[in-house]
Amino acid sequence: MRIGVLGTGMVGRALSGKLAELGHDVKVGSRTEGDGAIVFADAAAHGEIVFNCTAGAASIDALAAAGAEHLAGKPLIDVANPLDFSGGGPALFTDTTDSLGERIQAAFPDARVVKALNTINCNLMVEPASVPGDHVVFVCGNDAAAKEQAAGLLAEFGWTAERVIDLGDITAARGTEHYVILWLRLMSSVGGPNFNIALATAG
Amino acid sequence: MRIGVLGTGMVGRALSGKLAELGHDVKVGSRTEGDGAIVFADAAAHGEIVFNCTAGAASIDALAAAGAEHLAGKPLIDVANPLDFSGGGPALFTDTTDSLGERIQAAFPDARVVKALNTINCNLMVEPASVPGDHVVFVCGNDAAAKEQAAGLLAEFGWTAERVIDLGDITAARGTEHYVILWLRLMSSVGGPNFNIALATAG
Repeated sequence: MRIGVLGTGMVGRALSGKLAELGHDVKVGSRTEGDGAIVFADAAAHGEIVFNCTAGAASIDALAAAGAEHLAGKPLIDVANPLDFSGGGPALFTDTTDSLGERIQAAFPDARVVKALNTINCNLMVEPASVPGDHVVFVCGNDAAAKEQAAGLLAEFGWTAERVIDLGDITAARGTEHYVILWLRLMSSVGGPNFNIALATAG
Repeated sequence: MRIGVLGTGMVGRALSGKLAELGHDVKVGSRTEGDGAIVFADAAAHGEIVFNCTAGAASIDALAAAGAEHLAGKPLIDVANPLDFSGGGPALFTDTTDSLGERIQAAFPDARVVKALNTINCNLMVEPASVPGDHVVFVCGNDAAAKEQAAGLLAEFGWTAERVIDLGDITAARGTEHYVILWLRLMSSVGGPNFNIALATAG
Protein backbone atom coordinates (compact mmCIF):
# COMPACT_ATOMS: atom_id res chain seq x y z
CA MET A 1 0.00 0.00 0.00
CA ARG A 2 1.19 3.57 -0.67
CA ILE A 3 1.56 5.34 2.67
CA GLY A 4 2.52 8.92 3.44
CA VAL A 5 4.07 9.60 6.85
CA LEU A 6 4.15 13.24 7.90
CA GLY A 7 6.87 14.00 10.43
CA THR A 8 10.49 12.95 10.79
CA GLY A 9 10.70 12.79 14.57
CA MET A 10 10.93 9.58 16.58
CA VAL A 11 7.31 8.63 15.89
CA GLY A 12 7.52 9.24 12.15
CA ARG A 13 10.77 7.30 11.90
CA ALA A 14 9.45 4.35 13.92
CA LEU A 15 6.25 4.11 11.88
CA SER A 16 7.79 4.70 8.45
CA GLY A 17 10.59 2.22 9.17
CA LYS A 18 8.19 -0.51 10.24
CA LEU A 19 5.75 0.13 7.40
CA ALA A 20 8.58 -0.09 4.85
CA GLU A 21 9.86 -3.28 6.51
CA LEU A 22 6.36 -4.73 6.08
CA GLY A 23 6.63 -4.07 2.36
CA HIS A 24 4.60 -0.89 2.02
CA ASP A 25 5.57 1.89 -0.37
CA VAL A 26 6.30 4.60 2.18
CA LYS A 27 7.21 8.24 1.63
CA VAL A 28 8.13 10.44 4.58
CA GLY A 29 7.21 14.11 4.53
CA SER A 30 8.95 16.96 6.31
CA ARG A 31 8.55 20.71 6.34
CA THR A 32 11.65 20.96 4.13
CA GLU A 33 13.35 18.47 1.86
CA GLY A 34 16.50 16.62 2.90
CA ASP A 35 17.83 13.53 4.69
CA GLY A 36 15.62 11.30 2.56
CA ALA A 37 12.49 13.28 3.37
CA ILE A 38 10.32 15.03 0.82
CA VAL A 39 7.95 17.89 1.59
CA PHE A 40 4.65 17.26 3.38
CA ALA A 41 2.57 17.77 0.22
CA ASP A 42 4.47 15.17 -1.83
CA ALA A 43 4.24 12.57 0.95
CA ALA A 44 0.52 13.21 1.43
CA ALA A 45 -0.11 13.05 -2.32
CA HIS A 46 1.72 9.72 -2.45
CA GLY A 47 -0.26 8.04 0.31
CA GLU A 48 -3.49 6.11 0.05
CA ILE A 49 -3.29 6.38 3.83
CA VAL A 50 -1.58 9.26 5.62
CA PHE A 51 -0.10 9.26 9.14
CA ASN A 52 0.16 12.51 11.09
CA CYS A 53 3.30 12.14 13.20
CA THR A 54 4.06 15.83 13.55
CA ALA A 55 4.22 17.60 16.90
CA GLY A 56 0.71 18.36 18.12
CA ALA A 57 1.24 22.10 18.29
CA ALA A 58 2.38 22.10 14.65
CA SER A 59 -0.04 19.52 13.26
CA ILE A 60 -2.70 21.80 11.78
CA ASP A 61 -0.06 23.86 9.98
CA ALA A 62 1.73 20.75 8.78
CA LEU A 63 -1.49 19.28 7.43
CA ALA A 64 -2.30 22.58 5.72
CA ALA A 65 1.12 22.41 4.08
CA ALA A 66 0.35 18.82 3.09
CA GLY A 67 -2.74 20.15 1.37
CA ALA A 68 -6.39 19.42 2.07
CA GLU A 69 -6.70 18.12 -1.51
CA HIS A 70 -4.05 15.47 -0.76
CA LEU A 71 -5.89 14.32 2.37
CA ALA A 72 -9.45 14.32 1.00
CA GLY A 73 -11.12 10.92 1.08
CA LYS A 74 -8.13 9.23 2.72
CA PRO A 75 -7.75 7.70 6.16
CA LEU A 76 -5.65 10.20 8.11
CA ILE A 77 -4.23 8.40 11.13
CA ASP A 78 -3.52 11.02 13.76
CA VAL A 79 -0.85 9.89 16.20
CA ALA A 80 -0.08 13.36 17.62
CA ASN A 81 -0.84 14.67 21.08
CA PRO A 82 -1.69 18.29 21.93
CA LEU A 83 1.25 18.61 24.30
CA ASP A 84 2.28 22.01 25.56
CA PHE A 85 5.63 22.33 27.31
CA SER A 86 5.58 26.13 27.33
CA GLY A 87 4.65 26.29 31.00
CA GLY A 88 7.55 24.11 32.09
CA GLY A 89 5.69 20.90 32.76
CA PRO A 90 3.77 18.72 30.36
CA ALA A 91 0.24 19.96 29.77
CA LEU A 92 -2.29 19.86 26.97
CA PHE A 93 -3.30 22.93 24.99
CA THR A 94 -6.82 21.51 24.73
CA ASP A 95 -9.37 21.20 27.51
CA THR A 96 -11.60 18.21 28.20
CA THR A 97 -14.32 19.46 25.81
CA ASP A 98 -11.91 19.49 22.88
CA SER A 99 -9.14 17.45 21.28
CA LEU A 100 -6.50 17.71 18.60
CA GLY A 101 -8.20 14.88 16.73
CA GLU A 102 -11.41 16.88 16.54
CA ARG A 103 -9.58 20.04 15.51
CA ILE A 104 -7.90 18.16 12.67
CA GLN A 105 -11.20 16.62 11.54
CA ALA A 106 -12.85 20.07 11.63
CA ALA A 107 -10.00 21.72 9.73
CA PHE A 108 -9.89 18.95 7.09
CA PRO A 109 -13.50 17.79 6.81
CA ASP A 110 -12.85 15.64 3.73
CA ALA A 111 -10.12 13.63 5.47
CA ARG A 112 -11.26 10.51 7.31
CA VAL A 113 -9.48 11.08 10.61
CA VAL A 114 -8.69 8.13 12.86
CA LYS A 115 -7.05 8.86 16.18
CA ALA A 116 -4.77 5.97 17.09
CA LEU A 117 -1.49 4.96 18.71
CA ASN A 118 -1.13 8.22 20.67
CA THR A 119 -1.27 6.41 24.02
CA ILE A 120 2.00 4.49 23.72
CA ASN A 121 5.68 4.97 23.06
CA CYS A 122 6.69 4.86 19.39
CA ASN A 123 8.76 1.67 19.75
CA LEU A 124 5.83 -0.13 21.28
CA MET A 125 3.49 1.17 18.55
CA VAL A 126 5.22 -0.97 15.96
CA GLU A 127 6.38 -3.84 18.21
CA PRO A 128 3.54 -4.61 20.62
CA ALA A 129 5.13 -7.97 21.44
CA SER A 130 8.06 -6.13 23.06
CA VAL A 131 5.86 -5.82 26.16
CA PRO A 132 4.16 -9.06 27.27
CA GLY A 133 0.43 -9.27 27.82
CA ASP A 134 -2.75 -8.36 26.00
CA HIS A 135 -2.32 -4.61 26.36
CA VAL A 136 -4.41 -2.48 24.04
CA VAL A 137 -4.53 0.39 21.60
CA PHE A 138 -7.48 2.69 21.03
CA VAL A 139 -9.01 3.94 17.80
CA CYS A 140 -11.71 6.53 17.32
CA GLY A 141 -13.08 8.43 14.37
CA ASN A 142 -16.26 9.25 12.49
CA ASP A 143 -15.65 6.89 9.54
CA ALA A 144 -16.06 3.18 10.24
CA ALA A 145 -14.30 2.10 7.04
CA ALA A 146 -11.29 4.30 7.84
CA LYS A 147 -11.09 2.76 11.32
CA GLU A 148 -11.12 -0.68 9.70
CA GLN A 149 -8.27 0.28 7.40
CA ALA A 150 -6.32 1.61 10.38
CA ALA A 151 -7.02 -1.61 12.29
CA GLY A 152 -5.69 -3.55 9.31
CA LEU A 153 -2.33 -1.79 9.55
CA LEU A 154 -2.34 -2.18 13.35
CA ALA A 155 -2.85 -5.92 12.84
CA GLU A 156 0.26 -5.98 10.64
CA PHE A 157 2.20 -4.49 13.57
CA GLY A 158 0.86 -7.24 15.82
CA TRP A 159 -2.19 -5.53 17.35
CA THR A 160 -4.71 -8.31 16.93
CA ALA A 161 -8.36 -7.31 16.58
CA GLU A 162 -9.28 -7.99 20.23
CA ARG A 163 -6.53 -5.60 21.32
CA VAL A 164 -7.85 -2.69 19.25
CA ILE A 165 -10.51 -0.88 21.27
CA ASP A 166 -12.93 1.22 19.22
CA LEU A 167 -14.01 4.15 21.39
CA GLY A 168 -16.50 5.57 18.94
CA ASP A 169 -16.42 8.88 17.10
CA ILE A 170 -13.58 11.38 16.98
CA THR A 171 -14.71 13.15 20.18
CA ALA A 172 -13.29 10.14 22.04
CA ALA A 173 -9.87 11.60 21.23
CA ARG A 174 -10.53 13.75 24.31
CA GLY A 175 -10.14 10.57 26.31
CA THR A 176 -7.03 9.14 24.71
CA GLU A 177 -5.27 12.49 24.55
CA HIS A 178 -6.00 13.31 28.20
CA TYR A 179 -4.82 9.85 29.23
CA VAL A 180 -1.36 11.02 28.17
CA ILE A 181 -1.18 13.08 31.38
CA LEU A 182 -1.50 9.83 33.34
CA TRP A 183 0.90 8.08 30.95
CA LEU A 184 3.61 10.62 31.72
CA ARG A 185 3.23 9.96 35.48
CA LEU A 186 3.23 6.22 34.90
CA MET A 187 6.44 6.54 32.90
CA SER A 188 8.09 7.98 36.00
CA SER A 189 6.68 5.26 38.26
CA VAL A 190 7.47 2.39 35.89
CA GLY A 191 10.91 3.80 35.12
CA GLY A 192 10.65 4.17 31.35
CA PRO A 193 8.30 4.28 28.36
CA ASN A 194 8.06 0.54 27.68
CA PHE A 195 4.66 -0.09 29.22
CA ASN A 196 1.03 0.00 28.31
CA ILE A 197 -2.38 -0.68 29.80
CA ALA A 198 -4.58 -3.74 29.42
CA LEU A 199 -8.33 -3.82 29.98
CA ALA A 200 -9.75 -5.99 32.75
CA THR A 201 -13.48 -6.59 32.43
CA ALA A 202 -16.05 -8.51 34.41
CA GLY A 203 -17.27 -10.60 31.50
CA MET B 1 -9.96 2.20 63.19
CA ARG B 2 -12.17 5.30 63.48
CA ILE B 3 -13.00 6.48 59.97
CA GLY B 4 -14.99 9.47 58.79
CA VAL B 5 -16.62 9.25 55.38
CA LEU B 6 -17.79 12.55 53.90
CA GLY B 7 -20.55 12.15 51.36
CA THR B 8 -23.68 10.01 51.19
CA GLY B 9 -23.76 9.37 47.46
CA MET B 10 -22.98 6.03 45.83
CA VAL B 11 -19.25 6.31 46.56
CA GLY B 12 -19.70 7.26 50.22
CA ARG B 13 -22.21 4.47 50.74
CA ALA B 14 -20.01 1.85 49.07
CA LEU B 15 -16.94 2.82 51.06
CA SER B 16 -18.64 3.31 54.42
CA GLY B 17 -20.52 0.04 54.05
CA LYS B 18 -17.41 -1.94 53.25
CA LEU B 19 -15.32 -0.28 55.96
CA ALA B 20 -17.99 -1.05 58.57
CA GLU B 21 -18.21 -4.63 57.31
CA LEU B 22 -14.45 -4.89 57.84
CA GLY B 23 -14.97 -3.92 61.47
CA HIS B 24 -14.02 -0.27 61.40
CA ASP B 25 -15.81 2.35 63.47
CA VAL B 26 -17.29 4.40 60.62
CA LYS B 27 -19.27 7.61 60.77
CA VAL B 28 -20.76 9.08 57.61
CA GLY B 29 -21.02 12.84 57.22
CA SER B 30 -23.50 14.79 55.17
CA ARG B 31 -24.29 18.46 54.70
CA THR B 32 -27.33 18.00 56.92
CA GLU B 33 -28.25 15.37 59.52
CA GLY B 34 -30.66 12.57 58.75
CA ASP B 35 -30.94 9.04 57.33
CA GLY B 36 -28.21 7.85 59.67
CA ALA B 37 -25.81 10.58 58.58
CA ILE B 38 -24.31 13.18 60.86
CA VAL B 39 -22.94 16.53 59.74
CA PHE B 40 -19.57 16.73 57.96
CA ALA B 41 -17.80 18.22 61.00
CA ASP B 42 -18.84 15.42 63.36
CA ALA B 43 -17.79 12.70 60.91
CA ALA B 44 -14.43 14.37 60.28
CA ALA B 45 -13.84 14.87 64.01
CA HIS B 46 -14.56 11.17 64.56
CA GLY B 47 -12.12 9.86 61.96
CA GLU B 48 -8.46 9.05 62.38
CA ILE B 49 -8.67 8.81 58.61
CA VAL B 50 -11.16 10.80 56.53
CA PHE B 51 -12.51 9.94 53.06
CA ASN B 52 -13.71 12.71 50.76
CA CYS B 53 -16.55 11.16 48.75
CA THR B 54 -18.40 14.38 48.00
CA ALA B 55 -19.02 15.60 44.46
CA GLY B 56 -15.88 17.25 43.10
CA ALA B 57 -17.53 20.61 42.49
CA ALA B 58 -18.68 20.68 46.14
CA SER B 59 -15.62 19.16 47.78
CA ILE B 60 -13.81 22.30 48.94
CA ASP B 61 -16.99 23.65 50.53
CA ALA B 62 -17.77 20.29 52.13
CA LEU B 63 -14.26 20.05 53.58
CA ALA B 64 -14.53 23.61 54.87
CA ALA B 65 -17.77 22.60 56.59
CA ALA B 66 -15.96 19.56 57.99
CA GLY B 67 -13.45 21.96 59.47
CA ALA B 68 -9.73 22.29 58.79
CA GLU B 69 -9.10 21.55 62.49
CA HIS B 70 -10.80 18.17 62.10
CA LEU B 71 -8.65 17.28 59.09
CA ALA B 72 -5.29 18.51 60.38
CA GLY B 73 -2.66 15.81 60.67
CA LYS B 74 -4.96 13.11 59.30
CA PRO B 75 -4.79 11.15 56.06
CA LEU B 76 -7.52 12.63 53.88
CA ILE B 77 -8.28 10.15 51.11
CA ASP B 78 -9.71 12.11 48.21
CA VAL B 79 -11.86 9.94 45.95
CA ALA B 80 -13.62 12.82 44.17
CA ASN B 81 -13.25 13.90 40.55
CA PRO B 82 -13.53 17.47 39.26
CA LEU B 83 -16.38 16.60 36.93
CA ASP B 84 -18.36 19.35 35.32
CA PHE B 85 -21.62 18.44 33.60
CA SER B 86 -22.72 22.05 33.14
CA GLY B 87 -21.83 22.05 29.45
CA GLY B 88 -23.91 19.00 28.68
CA GLY B 89 -21.13 16.44 28.33
CA PRO B 90 -18.70 15.24 30.94
CA ALA B 91 -15.73 17.56 31.32
CA LEU B 92 -13.32 18.56 34.07
CA PHE B 93 -13.34 21.99 35.66
CA THR B 94 -9.56 21.77 36.03
CA ASP B 95 -6.98 21.93 33.25
CA THR B 96 -3.94 19.70 32.87
CA THR B 97 -1.78 21.99 35.04
CA ASP B 98 -4.12 21.60 38.01
CA SER B 99 -6.19 19.03 39.88
CA LEU B 100 -8.82 18.77 42.56
CA GLY B 101 -6.36 16.84 44.72
CA GLU B 102 -3.92 19.75 44.62
CA ARG B 103 -6.65 22.29 45.30
CA ILE B 104 -7.73 20.33 48.37
CA GLN B 105 -4.14 20.01 49.62
CA ALA B 106 -3.61 23.76 49.09
CA ALA B 107 -6.87 24.67 50.84
CA PHE B 108 -6.17 22.32 53.78
CA PRO B 109 -2.38 22.37 54.13
CA ASP B 110 -2.40 20.48 57.44
CA ALA B 111 -4.35 17.55 56.01
CA ARG B 112 -2.28 14.74 54.52
CA VAL B 113 -4.11 14.35 51.20
CA VAL B 114 -3.91 11.05 49.34
CA LYS B 115 -5.65 10.87 45.98
CA ALA B 116 -6.91 7.33 45.46
CA LEU B 117 -9.71 5.18 44.02
CA ASN B 118 -11.01 7.92 41.71
CA THR B 119 -10.27 5.86 38.59
CA ILE B 120 -12.80 3.10 39.18
CA ASN B 121 -16.46 2.50 39.84
CA CYS B 122 -17.45 2.51 43.51
CA ASN B 123 -18.44 -1.16 43.58
CA LEU B 124 -15.07 -2.16 42.19
CA MET B 125 -13.29 0.10 44.72
CA VAL B 126 -14.32 -2.15 47.57
CA GLU B 127 -14.52 -5.48 45.68
CA PRO B 128 -11.55 -5.62 43.34
CA ALA B 129 -12.02 -9.37 42.92
CA SER B 130 -15.35 -8.71 41.17
CA VAL B 131 -13.28 -8.10 38.02
CA PRO B 132 -10.66 -10.77 37.26
CA GLY B 133 -7.04 -9.90 36.67
CA ASP B 134 -4.32 -7.85 38.30
CA HIS B 135 -5.86 -4.50 37.51
CA VAL B 136 -4.57 -1.58 39.53
CA VAL B 137 -5.36 1.46 41.63
CA PHE B 138 -3.27 4.60 41.87
CA VAL B 139 -2.24 6.62 44.92
CA CYS B 140 -0.47 9.94 45.05
CA GLY B 141 0.22 12.50 47.72
CA ASN B 142 2.94 14.46 49.43
CA ASP B 143 3.03 12.40 52.64
CA ALA B 144 4.57 8.93 52.36
CA ALA B 145 3.16 7.74 55.70
CA ALA B 146 -0.35 8.81 54.72
CA LYS B 147 -0.01 6.89 51.45
CA GLU B 148 1.04 3.83 53.45
CA GLN B 149 -2.02 4.15 55.67
CA ALA B 150 -4.21 4.46 52.59
CA ALA B 151 -2.55 1.40 51.05
CA GLY B 152 -3.27 -0.49 54.27
CA LEU B 153 -6.99 0.13 53.88
CA LEU B 154 -6.80 -0.69 50.17
CA ALA B 155 -5.20 -4.01 51.10
CA GLU B 156 -8.17 -4.75 53.35
CA PHE B 157 -10.43 -4.27 50.31
CA GLY B 158 -8.27 -6.71 48.34
CA TRP B 159 -5.88 -4.36 46.58
CA THR B 160 -2.62 -6.16 47.25
CA ALA B 161 0.54 -4.08 47.41
CA GLU B 162 1.69 -4.85 43.85
CA ARG B 163 -1.64 -3.57 42.55
CA VAL B 164 -1.31 -0.17 44.26
CA ILE B 165 0.71 2.11 41.98
CA ASP B 166 2.33 5.08 43.75
CA LEU B 167 2.50 7.92 41.21
CA GLY B 168 4.41 10.31 43.46
CA ASP B 169 3.30 13.63 44.89
CA ILE B 170 -0.17 15.14 44.77
CA THR B 171 0.41 16.77 41.37
CA ALA B 172 0.03 13.28 39.90
CA ALA B 173 -3.70 13.72 40.60
CA ARG B 174 -3.68 15.60 37.28
CA GLY B 175 -3.05 12.23 35.66
CA THR B 176 -5.59 10.12 37.49
CA GLU B 177 -8.30 12.78 37.28
CA HIS B 178 -7.81 13.35 33.55
CA TYR B 179 -7.83 9.60 32.96
CA VAL B 180 -11.51 9.78 33.93
CA ILE B 181 -12.26 11.29 30.50
CA LEU B 182 -10.91 8.09 28.93
CA TRP B 183 -12.70 5.98 31.56
CA LEU B 184 -16.06 7.47 30.55
CA ARG B 185 -15.42 6.55 26.89
CA LEU B 186 -14.30 3.07 27.89
CA MET B 187 -17.48 2.62 29.91
CA SER B 188 -19.45 3.12 26.68
CA SER B 189 -17.24 0.71 24.73
CA VAL B 190 -17.16 -1.96 27.43
CA GLY B 191 -20.87 -1.58 28.09
CA GLY B 192 -20.81 -0.74 31.79
CA PRO B 193 -18.66 0.44 34.70
CA ASN B 194 -17.30 -2.93 35.81
CA PHE B 195 -13.83 -2.69 34.28
CA ASN B 196 -10.41 -1.39 35.12
CA ILE B 197 -6.94 -1.16 33.64
CA ALA B 198 -3.92 -3.32 34.35
CA LEU B 199 -0.33 -2.35 33.73
CA ALA B 200 1.74 -4.28 31.19
CA THR B 201 5.46 -3.67 31.52
CA ALA B 202 8.54 -4.93 29.73
CA GLY B 203 9.49 -6.72 32.93
